[in-house]
Amino acid sequence: MKKYSEMSKEELLELKEQLDRQYREIQAQGLSLDMSRGKPGADQLNISMEMMDVLKSGDDLKCETGVDCRNYGVLEGIPEAKRLLGEMAEVNPDEIIIYGNSSLNVMFDTIARCMMKGVLGNTPWSKLDKVKFLCPVPGYDRHFKITEYFGIEMINVPMTPEGPDMDMVERLVSEDEAVKGIWCVPKYSNPQGYTYSRETVARFARLKPAAKDFRIFWDNAYCVHHLYDTNQDFLVEILGECAKAGNPDMVYKFCSTSKISFPGSGIACVAASRANLEDFRSTMKIQTIGHDKLNQLRHVRYFKDIQGIHEHMRKHADLIRPKFEMVLETLERELGGKGIGEWTKPHGGYFISFDSMEGCAKDIVAKAKAAGVVMTDAGATFPYGRDPKDSNIRIAPTYPSIDELKKAAEVFVLCVKLSSVEKLLQQ
Amino acid sequence: MKKYSEMSKEELLELKEQLDRQYREIQAQGLSLDMSRGKPGADQLNISMEMMDVLKSGDDLKCETGVDCRNYGVLEGIPEAKRLLGEMAEVNPDEIIIYGNSSLNVMFDTIARCMMKGVLGNTPWSKLDKVKFLCPVPGYDRHFKITEYFGIEMINVPMTPEGPDMDMVERLVSEDEAVKGIWCVPKYSNPQGYTYSRETVARFARLKPAAKDFRIFWDNAYCVHHLYDTNQDFLVEILGECAKAGNPDMVYKFCSTSKISFPGSGIACVAASRANLEDFRSTMKIQTIGHDKLNQLRHVRYFKDIQGIHEHMRKHADLIRPKFEMVLETLERELGGKGIGEWTKPHGGYFISFDSMEGCAKDIVAKAKAAGVVMTDAGATFPYGRDPKDSNIRIAPTYPSIDELKKAAEVFVLCVKLSSVEKLLQQ
Repeated sequence: MKKYSEMSKEELLELKEQLDRQYREIQAQGLSLDMSRGKPGADQLNISMEMMDVLKSGDDLKCETGVDCRNYGVLEGIPEAKRLLGEMAEVNPDEIIIYGNSSLNVMFDTIARCMMKGVLGNTPWSKLDKVKFLCPVPGYDRHFKITEYFGIEMINVPMTPEGPDMDMVERLVSEDEAVKGIWCVPKYSNPQGYTYSRETVARFARLKPAAKDFRIFWDNAYCVHHLYDTNQDFLVEILGECAKAGNPDMVYKFCSTSKISFPGSGIACVAASRANLEDFRSTMKIQTIGHDKLNQLRHVRYFKDIQGIHEHMRKHADLIRPKFEMVLETLERELGGKGIGEWTKPHGGYFISFDSMEGCAKDIVAKAKAAGVVMTDAGATFPYGRDPKDSNIRIAPTYPSIDELKKAAEVFVLCVKLSSVEKLLQQ
Repeated sequence: MKKYSEMSKEELLELKEQLDRQYREIQAQGLSLDMSRGKPGADQLNISMEMMDVLKSGDDLKCETGVDCRNYGVLEGIPEAKRLLGEMAEVNPDEIIIYGNSSLNVMFDTIARCMMKGVLGNTPWSKLDKVKFLCPVPGYDRHFKITEYFGIEMINVPMTPEGPDMDMVERLVSEDEAVKGIWCVPKYSNPQGYTYSRETVARFARLKPAAKDFRIFWDNAYCVHHLYDTNQDFLVEILGECAKAGNPDMVYKFCSTSKISFPGSGIACVAASRANLEDFRSTMKIQTIGHDKLNQLRHVRYFKDIQGIHEHMRKHADLIRPKFEMVLETLERELGGKGIGEWTKPHGGYFISFDSMEGCAKDIVAKAKAAGVVMTDAGATFPYGRDPKDSNIRIAPTYPSIDELKKAAEVFVLCVKLSSVEKLLQQ
C-alpha cells in the first residue's frame, strides 16, 4: 500500500483518470442518499412502537403522588420521571428538573436566562462588554449556533481522544473573566465518539474560573448510547466530582430520551446543584405552567427503570452497530494506509469523525453531493461554520438502510480519493 | 331588599352578629375547597380519553406529506396540524406555526426574542431605556408576570364589557414610542368573560402606533370555549382586520388546545403575518429541532377538523355550564340588590369576575381561606399584584365538583357580606 503523497505525478495522473471514470459511472446512477443526519432509522423507531399502547383510554393516569397527569400542575416533572431520568443522569431525583421534548431547547433557554437574568445573582451576560464560550472542536453545530445567536464569542479548543485540550481550557478559564462557559458532549462526543477520560473530568471539576458565573454545559446526549455490550466507554459523573472539588455549582448537565424513544417526542431534563436548580425554577415558573406530564408518564410506564432503558438501548445498538462497522470497514479497506484521511472508531453515539487532507473537506462534500450523496456541510462542526483546516467531515451512519449506506460509503471514499489526488496534483 | 349602605349602625351590628355566627359554623366544618384554579374538572378530562387510543403500535405514523412523525424534522408543525389549528385560529395554514404544549411558553419566548433580537430588524427592546406594555385590567396574572420578569413597565388600562378603554389605548399607543405592546384576551376574557366588540377590534386594527415595533399580543385562549349553543359571543378576526387597515404586522395571535384536549399535553400555535412568522422562525430554528409531532398527529386524528373541535367543546360546555349557572344564581340570590358587589355573567371562558366594595377583596379572600375555601389571590388580576381599589376577585368555577362548588360559593358570599358589613361599620 503506497501513500498518495509518495506517488509520482505520473502515478497520480493515472490514478486520477481511473477515479474520474469511477466517479462519472457513479454520477450516472443518479443516486439520492443521505449520510448527513444524526437521526435514527425507521427500524430503530419501530422498536419503541409499543410505547403507543402504554397509556389507554381506560387507564388511571395519575402519577405516584396521586396528581392527575392529564391536568395542569407539577411544574418540575412527576416524581417517577425524575427518578427514571435521574438514574439515567446518575443524580438524585432532587437534583433534576424534567423539561419538554428537547434538551437543545433547554440549553437555548438556559443561555437566554444567563443573558437576561445572570447566573445566581451575578450580572446578566447581556450587560457585559464581552462574553466568551470555549468550544471543543470539532463539535456539535447546534451548540455553536446557540452561542452565535446570542453574540457570544466562541474560542476553538482542540479535542483529543481524552476530551478537550485541558491545558488550554484551564488557562483560558482561569485567566479570562469573560469566559463564561464551555460546550461539552462528554460521552461518545459529536462527532468523534470520544469519551472524556477520568483525568479530563477530574480536571474539569477542579477548574478555578476567573468568572464566578462560569458554567460547564455538559450535554450528555449519548449517555446510554453504547454500540457494544462489552467495550463500553465509562464517563465519571461530573456533578459529584464538582461537589467533591468544592465547585458544586459549576456544571449544568443535560439529557433527553430523544434517541432512546422518539426524536421530538421524548422528554428532556437538566441536572444541577440545588442552587442552580433554583435559578432554573425562577424562570421556568414564569415561562410555563408545566410540561407534558402524559408523555412523562408514558415514558416511565414503558421503560420502568434504568434497566429497561439499557435493555432498549441494546436493541438500538443491534440495529446501528452493523452500520458503523460497515462504514469503518469501507474506510479501512479503501483509505487505510493511503495517508489521505483519518477517522475515529467510536464505541457509541451517532457519528464518525473523518479528517481529510487539509483543504479537501469542502471539496469532498461537494463532490459527494454532485454524485447524489448528502453529507453534513463541511465546516459545520466548527463555530461560525469555519473549519480552519477545511478537513473535518461528520459521518452519520444511522439513518440510511444498510444497503444505502454501503453505496453512500463507497461514493464517499471515492470522493476522498479523487479530492486528495487533485490536491496533491496542485502542489 | 335593602342595600347595606342604607342600613343603620344598629342594623349592621345585628347583621354582623348573625353573619359571624354563620361564619363560625362554617369554620367548624373544616372545609377544604378550591375556587382559584382555571383548570378543567376530572369529568372534562374524561371526555378526551379516547385520544389515548388514537395512535397505536400498529399504525402508520406518517403525516400527509409522508414525513415520519416519530423522527426529527418538520420544524413548524405537520401540515394537517397547521390546517386544524388554522381553522381554530381563523387563518390560513401558511399564517401559522405549531409549537409545543403551551401558548404561554410561546408568549414568553416571543417577548424574550423581542427583548434580545428586536422586532423585524428594530432595536432589541433590552437596548432601550424604557419599554412599556398596556395591560387591560383586571387581566391574566401570568401575562403580567412575563412582562414583569423582563422589567417591562406595565400601564393599567380599564376593561369595559366592550374590551379595553380604546380612547386610552389609542392615546398611549400613538403618543409614546416606549409602548411596545398590549396584552389582550379578546374572547371570553380572563377574568371577566368579556368579548371585544366589533368596534373595539376595528379600533385595534386602525391603531397608529408611535413605535414601529408595537405589537398586539392577542391571546385567543378561549376562542372555542362557549358555554351555550346559542348565545355565543362573536369576535372579529384580527389578522384580516389589521391587514385591511394597512397594519398587517401589528398583531401576534396565540391559541392552544390546553383546555380542549389535556392541559399541559395539548398543542399551541402562533398566527401572524408572513413577515412576523419569519421573525419567529429565525429564533425557533436555533432554539429547537422541532416540537412533538406525534402529539400533533394525535390531535389531528382525534379531532379531524374544526367541527370535531366544536363538537368536543359542546361536551365541555355541558359539564361546566351548570357550574357557572350555579355560582351566578348563588351570587344573585345572596348578594343581588345589596350594593356590596358586582359580577360578570360570561357566555364562555373559564372565569367570573367579581368586584367587591372598595378595600374588601383581600379581606374576603382571607376570610374564605380561613373558612377552608381557596380563591385566587386578591390583586392577582393586576400588574405587580396591586389592585388599586382592592376590589377584584377572580372566581374559577370549573375545577370543583358541583357539590363542592355549591358549598364554596356559599362560603364566598358569606365572606363578602361579612367583610362588607365590617367595612361599613368602620366608616
